[in-house]
Amino acid sequence: MEAYDEFIQRVQDIHRLGALQGHLGWDQEVLMPSKGASSRGEMMAWLAGKRHEQLTDDRMGELLQFLEEMDLSPDQAANVREMRRAYNQAVRLPKSFVESFAQARSEALVSWQSAREASDFEAFKPSLKHLVSMTKEKIELLGITSTPYDVLLDEYEVGMKVEDYDPLFAGLRDRLVPLLHAITQAQVATEMPTLPSEISFPVEAQKVFCEEVAKNMGFDFSAGRMDASTHPFSAGLWPGDTRFTTRFDEKDPFSCLYAVMHETGHALYEQGLDHNHRFTPRGAAVSLGVHESQSRFWENQVGRTPAFWKVVLPWFRSSFPDAPDWDEHTLNRLANRVEKGFIRVEADEVTYNLHVMLRYEIEKRLFNGDLEVDDLPKAWNSMFKSWFDVDVPEDRLGCLQDIHWSMGAFGYFPTYTLGNLYAAQLLEAMAADLGDLDALVGSGDWKPMLDWLRPRIHERGSQVSPAQLIEDATGSPPSPEPFLRYVERKYGALYQLD
Amino acid sequence: MEAYDEFIQRVQDIHRLGALQGHLGWDQEVLMPSKGASSRGEMMAWLAGKRHEQLTDDRMGELLQFLEEMDLSPDQAANVREMRRAYNQAVRLPKSFVESFAQARSEALVSWQSAREASDFEAFKPSLKHLVSMTKEKIELLGITSTPYDVLLDEYEVGMKVEDYDPLFAGLRDRLVPLLHAITQAQVATEMPTLPSEISFPVEAQKVFCEEVAKNMGFDFSAGRMDASTHPFSAGLWPGDTRFTTRFDEKDPFSCLYAVMHETGHALYEQGLDHNHRFTPRGAAVSLGVHESQSRFWENQVGRTPAFWKVVLPWFRSSFPDAPDWDEHTLNRLANRVEKGFIRVEADEVTYNLHVMLRYEIEKRLFNGDLEVDDLPKAWNSMFKSWFDVDVPEDRLGCLQDIHWSMGAFGYFPTYTLGNLYAAQLLEAMAADLGDLDALVGSGDWKPMLDWLRPRIHERGSQVSPAQLIEDATGSPPSPEPFLRYVERKYGALYQLD
Repeated sequence: MEAYDEFIQRVQDIHRLGALQGHLGWDQEVLMPSKGASSRGEMMAWLAGKRHEQLTDDRMGELLQFLEEMDLSPDQAANVREMRRAYNQAVRLPKSFVESFAQARSEALVSWQSAREASDFEAFKPSLKHLVSMTKEKIELLGITSTPYDVLLDEYEVGMKVEDYDPLFAGLRDRLVPLLHAITQAQVATEMPTLPSEISFPVEAQKVFCEEVAKNMGFDFSAGRMDASTHPFSAGLWPGDTRFTTRFDEKDPFSCLYAVMHETGHALYEQGLDHNHRFTPRGAAVSLGVHESQSRFWENQVGRTPAFWKVVLPWFRSSFPDAPDWDEHTLNRLANRVEKGFIRVEADEVTYNLHVMLRYEIEKRLFNGDLEVDDLPKAWNSMFKSWFDVDVPEDRLGCLQDIHWSMGAFGYFPTYTLGNLYAAQLLEAMAADLGDLDALVGSGDWKPMLDWLRPRIHERGSQVSPAQLIEDATGSPPSPEPFLRYVERKYGALYQLD
Repeated sequence: MEAYDEFIQRVQDIHRLGALQGHLGWDQEVLMPSKGASSRGEMMAWLAGKRHEQLTDDRMGELLQFLEEMDLSPDQAANVREMRRAYNQAVRLPKSFVESFAQARSEALVSWQSAREASDFEAFKPSLKHLVSMTKEKIELLGITSTPYDVLLDEYEVGMKVEDYDPLFAGLRDRLVPLLHAITQAQVATEMPTLPSEISFPVEAQKVFCEEVAKNMGFDFSAGRMDASTHPFSAGLWPGDTRFTTRFDEKDPFSCLYAVMHETGHALYEQGLDHNHRFTPRGAAVSLGVHESQSRFWENQVGRTPAFWKVVLPWFRSSFPDAPDWDEHTLNRLANRVEKGFIRVEADEVTYNLHVMLRYEIEKRLFNGDLEVDDLPKAWNSMFKSWFDVDVPEDRLGCLQDIHWSMGAFGYFPTYTLGNLYAAQLLEAMAADLGDLDALVGSGDWKPMLDWLRPRIHERGSQVSPAQLIEDATGSPPSPEPFLRYVERKYGALYQLD
């Protein structure tokens, strides 16, 4: 079919420009010299403009309309469906807006980095105000339905709205807050080990140890790389080239390890996509929520278990001969300590979703008109106080901690919670198929788990919607129950809550 | 002027695509995982096709024609002149040819790398044959004037033809061959030091030492990077981001040092371009010959002198405490040993141009129809024997040594000799302005030399032709005399040739 071929060629061109943006973004975080920032911002804006130009081309509109009337294969239909969504959004935004937004994001990132270091919200405020006001303009341009924030939520996880998240989060809060209280009470009685501050874990040894873990998870280092960056992330780039980053803290080997397991989870998804469909939606990850389910599955449900620690204990000991003679249970308890900490990315599985909800509440107020940027730190700190019963001492540990807002990514955070829920649901379904997962993880051969995920998640790309994908893989529509069961059972046992 | 603005926007788009090719090329040599090769080749071909599409757009032709009739500033006229040249070439090549050629180059690079390692010309032969035949097709498409090889030579240094190179090279050979003989004779009498094989120069220490040298040359590390790759190279990328590479040999610190000085010379040119004219010919380096003059100036005329070694001796000693207690004269003699070696990039200044001429003769025969790819190794080895009086033991040390042919870069080598000639001519002119350069180099403050080159070479970009640029900077048209004077004086003194 000629029309479909022409369509796919255009789709691939658009995705290739996106892949170039991804590549330059990776380079910017990992390697770029500081004085390259300004021309990099210019280049990113230019690529965004070109991509927008091609996406909104009249011919793309004609082709979509024509193909929507045709009899298509499921894969073809998926590409038409996803491109229709992207097209409908893009045609509402002028190219000049897309370019200015990309430029503003690049600049805000630089401003945020120094503001965060100095814990100086005032220094970041002008950039943040600019991004918030541009995002409000974007919501207007895209067309408000009922709730302005919905427009942003939908961008990061199709079909999810405030009316979906509000009850979901309320339900989670109703069970997580009591669990947190019970743990806090029990913590007084239970003796949890801590990391001795006098021991150092050399960077080179951490690197070797973590690469071994990533390899055992199934990451193909001849088709990818691991590097260091301030904020760990992963990038699919293109077939045969998937890269992720981590960070190193000489006092805390868990920081690097769990960053690596998290990012390797993302990277395995990218390496497992069907490259015959490269540079099309069908060959790309379906959503941020599903992506996060892959990272959280490996990080928490595999990585924070005694069975995992049993397997890696010999590697850990040979990498860190100066560490105390911990056994797998002590290491597992070190890795699972529940704390009312300030930092989301360091949070345990009980408090993590509370951190996400706080950001969701702030964003909802910001875009529904109930909160000004000026009042953001106050709102953050008072909400944190009421949920965690702790005062935030400085904005570096509060509203300046995350990179997302400096990238204009409002509406992104809730997908992290979706990822946690999907992961727990996948875990239950996988256990039903493969039997005792503790035994499987403890055997050291993790290939059956990856092989289970490949055809059900990775290889399917954007064939169906995220919710459908989860339902196809697990037999049930997405639900918070498996996660709540999982977290209550796990932490109940760890803290002997009975 | 609206037409010029539209023209420049198109010119910048074309150059941005070129900058992306440069960036991906850098990444490919420095970081890319092996399995990324195939999709990288695809991406490079795609960018080449897009670039070609934009360059050959009908509107570009109209704009050029219109602007050529207008009254333009010198800078504007330079952009129109250079784009006319690129346009006239590009419109003769079909897009499909440009894409296939890019793809063939990417594949040949991979095939050459393994063939070179195994010293197996037969393994590289099919790729080389393919590239040679595509290049012949390209010559046909571009339109033969009289000598087919001229078409290739002109691509790398505008205006240079066989009728220019033949007498130039003959003149050089007439003076260099006797000089080489005299040195070989004298070498028996003169005692030249050699590197003791039992000493190691650790990679980390070499890195620190070389970075110090590059910094002292004026390289701005906050606007660039130094990395490692098999084949040292430099890449301008974009404003504020200039990168070069080196390689490390633990047995030979000179290999890394002179690669760094050479590539830093290139990189200083890129850092010194006028970024107000970024992404246009006016803001880009004028030619490969002039580029090479910058690298050779720093590598040889600054770096291989006793004055240089006097300055860096303390850095050398503190970096390599286990090295013998060499003084600056011994180090200088170590760095200037003349040898009938097999490898061009390791050649001294006397034999270097003979290596270039050999490649020039091979290429000339290949494209003028006097030599087949099958007979290439034999032709190489017999010419090498007749000029150097040494047998080439394996193709790794002969016709497989250089990367150029695997990149389809036929006609490139002669620009290396032009670089040597230009460099010597610039040295004489600089000395006339700044006085005793030995004293200047020996003072350790090399900024006056860079400051001399900036307005005369770097900042002018492609404002005028290479020959005009050299004439403007030195007061005379390009000539081999300054180089011959320089090399005869320098090596005459080193080997006490009377």
